[in-house]
Amino acid sequence: MKQIFYDIIVKTKESGLYDFTDQVQDFVKKNKLINGILNINILHTSASLIIQENADPDVLYDLNNFFNKLVPMNNKLYKHTTEGKDDMPAHVKSALTNSHLTLSVKDNEVILGTWQGLYLFEHRLANQNRRISCHFIGQ
Amino acid sequence: MKQIFYDIIVKTKESGLYDFTDQVQDFVKKNKLINGILNINILHTSASLIIQENADPDVLYDLNNFFNKLVPMNNKLYKHTTEGKDDMPAHVKSALTNSHLTLSVKDNEVILGTWQGLYLFEHRLANQNRRISCHFIGQ
Amino acid sequence: MKQIFYDIIVKTKESGLYDFTDQVQDFVKKNKLINGILNINILHTSASLIIQENADPDVLYDLNNFFNKLVPMNNKLYKHTTEGKDDMPAHVKSALTNSHLTLSVKDNEVILGTWQGLYLFEHRLANQNRRISCHFIGQ
Repeated sequence: MKQIFYDIIVKTKESGLYDFTDQVQDFVKKNKLINGILNINILHTSASLIIQENADPDVLYDLNNFFNKLVPMNNKLYKHTTEGKDDMPAHVKSALTNSHLTLSVKDNEVILGTWQGLYLFEHRLANQNRRISCHFIGQ
Repeated sequence: MKQIFYDIIVKTKESGLYDFTDQVQDFVKKNKLINGILNINILHTSASLIIQENADPDVLYDLNNFFNKLVPMNNKLYKHTTEGKDDMPAHVKSALTNSHLTLSVKDNEVILGTWQGLYLFEHRLANQNRRISCHFIGQ
Repeated sequence: MKQIFYDIIVKTKESGLYDFTDQVQDFVKKNKLINGILNINILHTSASLIIQENADPDVLYDLNNFFNKLVPMNNKLYKHTTEGKDDMPAHVKSALTNSHLTLSVKDNEVILGTWQGLYLFEHRLANQNRRISCHFIGQ
């Protein structure tokens, strides 16, 4: 049994979805990971991970827009306001999506549907360096 | 270490929850999977996977109804509208729930609570064939 | 390859977030789990699991408050009402968050960001004993 740990850094510059599928596929290819589990965790609580459609950029726009309306940046709604109007909404949006993705690798490819991409969902407004932990276990 | 990959197809005919627990348990039984991880990914972005109560069908009705109210099928709210009024809401509902379930298998049984069932949550209105990837790693 | 199964019980006394990070870290330390996957499933459908900020308790208050507003305890909104006004909202909140967390263990430590804690999110109002299944696979 083989285990490999690897961190991916995604630089973000505003809220929205950032595709990191290629970075994950490269990691699988370069390390010749054949079959196994690829566990991916984001090490933050104000950004999250989701699998979404990679074909039409409007989907990504609409997703971010929906979450911004659902979880308003209005300090009157929250007690935790010291880190800015976008901070508590960022925690809520993270809770509504995922902190991790658990993927399967088969024949040196991540199993994904044709229209599926891996996205970091940034919920803060200012630039961030987001760290994503990747862990493979298998053969 | 043993690894097995297997696809389940769920045919859906309208939005709502479709129980596929038995198909997963059958897979575990027939392949004599004793202890390990069972990673389940749906290969679409307009349907999702959740674990929910399997006792009262009203729970499933209420869940679907809640999500329909939370994410309205109203084209004025979205830019991505070419695939129908139900398409962008389907992506949002998928983001709000899960694209994968990671289960544990112990003594040839999937570990689930007494009232837990595995559901495909269909968010599109028309008939669909949904593909779910199952991957076992263990003994 | 080593596999260990272990149940954690969390006693809750009202809706809100309950930190169980230490119980998981203790399990990893005591069993000398070096590298592997730690799969954590809650065996209920009216409470859920999330990773959230462990620094400011106001974040936990705001999260619970947001979900209570998003999913009102109003029996007129639901068909499934026999188990109390908090029951169907509890199922919805569970669907909006997670039934499981899949973590990576490296060098005998669970990989978590500095500000990340593991929380059981209780959605029922009365006292509960919640069972969480932990399963390690690795070395």
